[in-house]
Amino acid sequence: MTWLPDPTLPDPNQPAADHDGWRTLSRELQYDGDYVKLYHEIVATPTRPGGQDWTVVRRKAAVVIAARTEEGKWLLVCQERIAIRQTIWEFPAGQIEVPGNFSGDYQALLEDTVWRELREETGYMAGPESSLTALGMFFSSAGFTDEHSYIFLADKVVPHAEGSQPDQAEAITGCRAFLLAELQAMVALGEIFDANTLASYARLAATRLI
Amino acid sequence: MTWLPDPTLPDPNQPAADHDGWRTLSRELQYDGDYVKLYHEIVATPTRPGGQDWTVVRRKAAVVIAARTEEGKWLLVCQERIAIRQTIWEFPAGQIEVPGNFSGDYQALLEDTVWRELREETGYMAGPESSLTALGMFFSSAGFTDEHSYIFLADKVVPHAEGSQPDQAEAITGCRAFLLAELQAMVALGEIFDANTLASYARLAATRLI
Repeated sequence: MTWLPDPTLPDPNQPAADHDGWRTLSRELQYDGDYVKLYHEIVATPTRPGGQDWTVVRRKAAVVIAARTEEGKWLLVCQERIAIRQTIWEFPAGQIEVPGNFSGDYQALLEDTVWRELREETGYMAGPESSLTALGMFFSSAGFTDEHSYIFLADKVVPHAEGSQPDQAEAITGCRAFLLAELQAMVALGEIFDANTLASYARLAATRLI
Repeated sequence: MTWLPDPTLPDPNQPAADHDGWRTLSRELQYDGDYVKLYHEIVATPTRPGGQDWTVVRRKAAVVIAARTEEGKWLLVCQERIAIRQTIWEFPAGQIEVPGNFSGDYQALLEDTVWRELREETGYMAGPESSLTALGMFFSSAGFTDEHSYIFLADKVVPHAEGSQPDQAEAITGCRAFLLAELQAMVALGEIFDANTLASYARLAATRLI
């Protein structure tokens, strides 16, 4: 598994690049928000060289963290999600903030984001035996948005003495460590509603890490 | 597993309803597209009764179809995705079109959508021994959109004599039946980038259907 972003995939800084039959013929900003930008685009594709109109919503890329404690339990946070009017259990996750002096070292940027978000949302951190395993990336809804997330297994994490440091704009109402059997039952019963968590579970299951 | 939409979850017709501490204080349409609508909302949440500003992108709900042939192979389509400038392998999927005379019978609406999309995208249809199993629903990116998909296992599907009927606005460049071992390897190696497919795989794995 290579986990450095493929150069043909959108990176945290830039909209999707032209390559191999894909060419942006026009791009018009329709809505310019801090967290969401919406464009009208006309794009030539490999099978439609004359171009196709599309509405594209652009968002920052993110990391998702499947974190397992030293006791083999999985950390989930319970988060208020305004777009769906629900409070749901999810693996911790957070957007990638690209620093002004970014050197192009994605690996370090993604790892820093993993540990920062894990600490903020769960109050856990890397321990003496921790490891970080990249499980690739995925697109949350390629029909209309370039948003994508890099999945990591953070193993043998330990509690930080000072606990979590929640972001005030989010509302994390709880964090709990679940047995694998509990997590599996929640996924099986349709009680995990979050694409990040389900995509991570799929990669973990297919690689026999769970 | 109940697969009728929970009344507290957004349904294919309506934006998320107020319930249990969730209350929409204001909603302002910022962008009104055929496929994407963007709103500024101020929403009271269980922990923030004074209300929180949020940008919410609204899209139609969809179905995702994990379809297995009579030979035990899994059907994936290869689709051009303009938002990410990539052609990727995915389980067939499609948005739910609510008819003008909709009676509120979600089960029939979802089942009709499953068979219509399967036929259009793959050229397969229900066979004499086919069954349809609901695997719950999920939200593609609850941080900013109410988009959600209902996952189905369509088992023992058979080829239609007349093949597929692709939608002209989409560009499906191929359809193939994969062995389970091939699908598993693609998920494990990070070669499946699509949240729909990964979420479906997670539910299938957790329920031991694969």
